[in-house]
Amino acid sequence: MFSLRPIGYVKSPYKTTEEVPKGLGAQHNAEGVLEILPELEAGLTDIEGFSHLIVLWVFDHQIVDGKTEFELLGTPPNDDRPHGVFATRSPRRPNPIGLTVVELLRREGRRLHVRGVDMLDGTPVLDIKPYLSNIPAEKLQRGWLAQAEARQKK
Amino acid sequence: MFSLRPIGYVKSPYKTTEEVPKGLGAQHNAEGVLEILPELEAGLTDIEGFSHLIVLWVFDHQIVDGKTEFELLGTPPNDDRPHGVFATRSPRRPNPIGLTVVELLRREGRRLHVRGVDMLDGTPVLDIKPYLSNIPAEKLQRGWLAQAEARQKK
Repeated sequence: MFSLRPIGYVKSPYKTTEEVPKGLGAQHNAEGVLEILPELEAGLTDIEGFSHLIVLWVFDHQIVDGKTEFELLGTPPNDDRPHGVFATRSPRRPNPIGLTVVELLRREGRRLHVRGVDMLDGTPVLDIKPYLSNIPAEKLQRGWLAQAEARQKK
Repeated sequence: MFSLRPIGYVKSPYKTTEEVPKGLGAQHNAEGVLEILPELEAGLTDIEGFSHLIVLWVFDHQIVDGKTEFELLGTPPNDDRPHGVFATRSPRRPNPIGLTVVELLRREGRRLHVRGVDMLDGTPVLDIKPYLSNIPAEKLQRGWLAQAEARQKK
């Protein structure tokens, strides 16, 4: 359909997928840096005012010879039963795009220092968008994840 | 980097960009349908339990001959001054990927009836992810958007 180009890369403390916290109650407090390409730095103008950013990135470890393998049903690390890929955050998706909400700690030129990275070091970034609003808590339902959490508490 | 493939298409009441509500206080209550390809229907398993979904899609009107034009600085419809593209939801992005949070009303097989579409009819969908959590309201800062809203109220 169209060619994606990285707008930058993630600097992360995680070098392998095994190091990334997973499962119920996993905390994502790791600090990292989103390093944007020099020619795109103007696109960061006024980003400092936002406390949180939505980062789209590539599960590039899922891509082999330009092709991606995916699983329509998979058992996530935080449950013991399978769910559809579109009801999970599995990396094995038809389009291997990851999404992470990070807290913006500070900007240094084309480097955004952020908290909450769960990407590997060197991950290509596709897009950054401001986080603008929440879903009202009383309206939010979290499906199988809420059920898995309830089972774990028993 | 890798080839994107649509996982489905949006059925929306909006046929042209002019029809989509824009600007401060714009309400996105339009109902639409995310129609997933038949061969990917199994990927929707258990999605019914989630009240809200994150939809990634393509600003396909921005793509001409496989190329995308983008603006690093642009003035959004809800402000009178320019901001960096990564601090806005502008369609004229280096990677023309849109993101919309929708409310899942019901599922009928491979059709997800949703509220809150702001895409045009026929828009290709790239991914659907469950909406899992909010940023605590007291921690959320909304930069230039909050300033523009404050100016409008005066």
